[in-house]
Amino acid sequence: MTGIGVIGCGYWGPNLIRNFNSQADADLIAISDLDENRLNTVGLLYPNTRKTTDYRDLINDPAIDAVVVATPMSTHFDLGMEVLAAGKHLFVEKPMATNSEDCRTLIKTAAAKDLKLMVGHTFVYSPPVRMIKQLLDDGELGDIYYVNISRVNLGIFQKDANVIWDLAPHDVAMLNFLFGAEPIAVSGTGHCYVQKERGIEDVAFVTLEYPGGKLVHIHVSWLDPNKIRTCTFVGSKKMLVYDDVSPSEKIRLYDKGVDVQPHYEGFGEFQLLYRSGDIFLPHVDTYEPLKSQAAHFLEFIQGKVVCQSDGTHGLKVVEVLEAACQSVKEDGRRITLEPIA
Amino acid sequence: MTGIGVIGCGYWGPNLIRNFNSQADADLIAISDLDENRLNTVGLLYPNTRKTTDYRDLINDPAIDAVVVATPMSTHFDLGMEVLAAGKHLFVEKPMATNSEDCRTLIKTAAAKDLKLMVGHTFVYSPPVRMIKQLLDDGELGDIYYVNISRVNLGIFQKDANVIWDLAPHDVAMLNFLFGAEPIAVSGTGHCYVQKERGIEDVAFVTLEYPGGKLVHIHVSWLDPNKIRTCTFVGSKKMLVYDDVSPSEKIRLYDKGVDVQPHYEGFGEFQLLYRSGDIFLPHVDTYEPLKSQAAHFLEFIQGKVVCQSDGTHGLKVVEVLEAACQSVKEDGRRITLEPIA
Amino acid sequence: MTGIGVIGCGYWGPNLIRNFNSQADADLIAISDLDENRLNTVGLLYPNTRKTTDYRDLINDPAIDAVVVATPMSTHFDLGMEVLAAGKHLFVEKPMATNSEDCRTLIKTAAAKDLKLMVGHTFVYSPPVRMIKQLLDDGELGDIYYVNISRVNLGIFQKDANVIWDLAPHDVAMLNFLFGAEPIAVSGTGHCYVQKERGIEDVAFVTLEYPGGKLVHIHVSWLDPNKIRTCTFVGSKKMLVYDDVSPSEKIRLYDKGVDVQPHYEGFGEFQLLYRSGDIFLPHVDTYEPLKSQAAHFLEFIQGKVVCQSDGTHGLKVVEVLEAACQSVKEDGRRITLEPIA
Amino acid sequence: MTGIGVIGCGYWGPNLIRNFNSQADADLIAISDLDENRLNTVGLLYPNTRKTTDYRDLINDPAIDAVVVATPMSTHFDLGMEVLAAGKHLFVEKPMATNSEDCRTLIKTAAAKDLKLMVGHTFVYSPPVRMIKQLLDDGELGDIYYVNISRVNLGIFQKDANVIWDLAPHDVAMLNFLFGAEPIAVSGTGHCYVQKERGIEDVAFVTLEYPGGKLVHIHVSWLDPNKIRTCTFVGSKKMLVYDDVSPSEKIRLYDKGVDVQPHYEGFGEFQLLYRSGDIFLPHVDTYEPLKSQAAHFLEFIQGKVVCQSDGTHGLKVVEVLEAACQSVKEDGRRITLEPIA
Repeated sequence: MTGIGVIGCGYWGPNLIRNFNSQADADLIAISDLDENRLNTVGLLYPNTRKTTDYRDLINDPAIDAVVVATPMSTHFDLGMEVLAAGKHLFVEKPMATNSEDCRTLIKTAAAKDLKLMVGHTFVYSPPVRMIKQLLDDGELGDIYYVNISRVNLGIFQKDANVIWDLAPHDVAMLNFLFGAEPIAVSGTGHCYVQKERGIEDVAFVTLEYPGGKLVHIHVSWLDPNKIRTCTFVGSKKMLVYDDVSPSEKIRLYDKGVDVQPHYEGFGEFQLLYRSGDIFLPHVDTYEPLKSQAAHFLEFIQGKVVCQSDGTHGLKVVEVLEAACQSVKEDGRRITLEPIA
Repeated sequence: MTGIGVIGCGYWGPNLIRNFNSQADADLIAISDLDENRLNTVGLLYPNTRKTTDYRDLINDPAIDAVVVATPMSTHFDLGMEVLAAGKHLFVEKPMATNSEDCRTLIKTAAAKDLKLMVGHTFVYSPPVRMIKQLLDDGELGDIYYVNISRVNLGIFQKDANVIWDLAPHDVAMLNFLFGAEPIAVSGTGHCYVQKERGIEDVAFVTLEYPGGKLVHIHVSWLDPNKIRTCTFVGSKKMLVYDDVSPSEKIRLYDKGVDVQPHYEGFGEFQLLYRSGDIFLPHVDTYEPLKSQAAHFLEFIQGKVVCQSDGTHGLKVVEVLEAACQSVKEDGRRITLEPIA
Repeated sequence: MTGIGVIGCGYWGPNLIRNFNSQADADLIAISDLDENRLNTVGLLYPNTRKTTDYRDLINDPAIDAVVVATPMSTHFDLGMEVLAAGKHLFVEKPMATNSEDCRTLIKTAAAKDLKLMVGHTFVYSPPVRMIKQLLDDGELGDIYYVNISRVNLGIFQKDANVIWDLAPHDVAMLNFLFGAEPIAVSGTGHCYVQKERGIEDVAFVTLEYPGGKLVHIHVSWLDPNKIRTCTFVGSKKMLVYDDVSPSEKIRLYDKGVDVQPHYEGFGEFQLLYRSGDIFLPHVDTYEPLKSQAAHFLEFIQGKVVCQSDGTHGLKVVEVLEAACQSVKEDGRRITLEPIA
Repeated sequence: MTGIGVIGCGYWGPNLIRNFNSQADADLIAISDLDENRLNTVGLLYPNTRKTTDYRDLINDPAIDAVVVATPMSTHFDLGMEVLAAGKHLFVEKPMATNSEDCRTLIKTAAAKDLKLMVGHTFVYSPPVRMIKQLLDDGELGDIYYVNISRVNLGIFQKDANVIWDLAPHDVAMLNFLFGAEPIAVSGTGHCYVQKERGIEDVAFVTLEYPGGKLVHIHVSWLDPNKIRTCTFVGSKKMLVYDDVSPSEKIRLYDKGVDVQPHYEGFGEFQLLYRSGDIFLPHVDTYEPLKSQAAHFLEFIQGKVVCQSDGTHGLKVVEVLEAACQSVKEDGRRITLEPIA
């Protein structure tokens, strides 16, 4: 039985609380929030869980083995360090921290103390993403040529982060997981419209280059009349469209493509054959990703699994976000990324 | 009555022939094609029109006042020059030529001989584009922040032009017309997948900067499972989505947006107010753009109108395509364009 | 301040409890359920509300002015009668009872004791339905010719009621409210597939004739691969499609139709003119209908409003369901309904 | 080589002419129309085909083996009889005639003279319908429970036929072909709105009962804002939706359904298990049905195939339309149909 404490009962925290509480081998010992009203409201559903407005009470509770940090991004590093200092495992919400340096410090600290560190990149645990992972690993799509992603909607405009930090973490975490690799180069352009005076980009285009020539193009925007969450994977054998907004048809697999015939001797020409094929919409499970994510964290602590969104995974996402924002500042300069040793 | 000759009875020519033939004040004197079978098949519908496999017969026919050139792009310049040399007005298909230098020569030659020169940028004459022009000119959308365009489908892969030259002319011609301006800077990235050995890009992303901070982002691709033709216009007052694939709902006008409240004294914060508004789908006329385009050419010759896709318009499109391809070669370098005097 | 008690904490009850609890001028005194676990789980959120497994405790509580009955349909009548006998106002879930005779008894009993009686036909309080009501009352659609409704999905198969009793109450309640009238004749056909041995219809087609020649055709089914909730209103001036499944575009108003020109003297022919018009998607509020319904019940008790889903409204719905099922048994015979005095 | 003559160059005739002309083993000898202008316009494309305004010239031409009748429905019988009297094979457009008696006479006359008789029920030859036929015959859907069809749009209002005669022939011909059977009972209701004074129904609901308990419900209407052509097939194993309006996704096959577990001894309850399965969109060929239909007629004449839309097939369609209209007149009375000997 793992004792769990959760810091942060705001927008996202209650979902984590609910899902950790429902795990058979976890014990929700305490929750914490600075806002007492909020704490009590959320706490009503958990009569046997201690409520405290002082997160230090929670961190220092000997019954607690692992702490979940679901507070604003800017506090992730300091709180995370305190959790680790107290000798507890750490689950921290995404993005892991506001810069890669802090991420590295968290990783080193956890390693030095032999504590587990996981980042809440929920998409990694979502049924459609896991199905796509399986399809890619099985070679269903052939070689991936490129991926085109639209993640746009109207608002919500953040006041201390641009649209890249707000929306792109999902995509980078997903892609690094799907490809089992991180980008080798990043470039981006961004534009400030509504918050021009603050210099906060509300529209951006980010290009990622993965090993093997896989290209990813991401459009993130707070300025679009429709909510769009579409990822198109173009492979040498098949194409796949993942539409996360569709309630019941999230994945479409197209047996459609272009076959390139090999060069024949003496002929300079090669031949393109179009395939117009069937479309397959596999049934996608509908379990809650947060539940699977909570179970994964517990198994990770128990040494049963290799974590799929550990500190290094979280760091790589932050590195890409940093590089993308740097490129935006430099008018789209291509920035190469060092592999993480 | 204007005497018309048409060179080229291939894919597009018959549409031009049909629409010029149906104009009350035009006389379709002759049509020409190198392929005699093709010429005769197309010609069956026009028993009173002369057919010739030698375009020189047509160009030199004194009954012909204006010549329509609907041949492959690489022949536009030479044929166009011969038409002008023969003292005939010239209608040439898009793109006007394979490079801007040739475009300039065509313009100068026409001007020197006081002949009319028009390029077949049909989108300028299409009902939805004209409706959008009206809405923009009326200020319905407020200031345009940015435009996002997807023009993608599976193939048809060209063997002597990349996807930018194949698909982007429509967008550039449309935008220059809508904004009454040309881009001041262009950048682009492109990628070769299916025709890697030939170095022909099949996927590209092009960014155009128009005066006044209007940004346009264009995604063109021959490698997408779905045919998509979507332009999203984001303005300070309203947003508009133009979906050219939709048979009956091409334009959606969203009374939706974000209002920025001015700074109040003593408050560092400004306020963002979201508007969730009505959506309006105006009825769009369904007349054939080619018919309107043919009528426009005749009126242009007759000196009744200022041409909306004249040689200079065609040149500007080619300049943007050139710059985009140059930027692709230089890894997305931002290329500034000189205004055309 | 009105004291409220709620009987039934099953599928629907908690929604009613939550919405009555949030009313400023109501006091949620007690809730009741036979299942103690369920009662306690639901009750956790309402620490100041009394929980009881014996609904009689609740009904006889002098602090309670009105009782909400959210139990299975077959118990509505008996519980409702007990509530009225105890001198409390009654809110009963839809359908009001299993037959019209019981409905009449409830109405008479309430009237005799000067108690208020309301039925939970939530659709009457839903934002899109209220918008349609306004459009109809304003004459926007002209005369209504007919309404075509599809309310189909896969399951959930009921074991003690057919698909008409399960799905059609929503439509009948909505239409009676929209038209301010009840059907004058009903016919229906129904078919048993999955539960053939039990004789429970899973597919049915019901036709309602409203005064003034308005025809309604309803298709209800538990055997359709897609969830469809579409109502098409065809009027002499405009047409309207209400799609309750669409998350953000529930109402489409078509300025489209056919104009019939009057007979001219000496001409036997009349003229049909088609209008191909704009389409308008009004922004529809997204407040919770149950909240508005709860407020309405309180105002009804306080004598401030005429109830829009009172006992008579509930009775009329049940009468139509009865007649439809009778018609199904008689192979679709047209059954006329008497106006309710 | 079969000599072909076509009577009628109106709306549909030119499509038949074009497709018969393109058959390798047919010779388009003559075409005919009362309207000389129309005849010449259509005829321009067929310089080697004789044009005549007198259909008798055509019927009596010894070079003609078979005559195609593509004239208004009311003339099908008289023209068809003249064709047969002249000893020619007959292809007549749908519906075969205005009443079943005339259909029987045509069939008998053709049989007596050993001539072939085929009706132009094009849907029988359309790629999606043929694919559905294959799926049904292979048992992919299991037992068919019911079919629900919507065939609605705005207009075109006919002045001498109601909406059933206008739109339902497609459905009846398709279903009889798919099921290899004809309905055993028919009922219908219909309503006159726009052409009330003429008594021409513009909205109708028709129910067909096929052997084996297969039920079909058809909604035809000239009064709907959207063009809808949807057929939902509900089977015991799978469900299929055929959307003829969709340009590229006409057939969706749902591996979704309800499994009924058999009764166990001692248990009154049976168990329903829902299956939420994959969806499959097979690639459907896009050849022109009319071409396939023309080839089929030629092979039928040559004795190579059993005709899939012969006179008896055409008669059965007309019988169903007659019965449906009769039922409409009698307020939806169920009318049983005799099997055709």
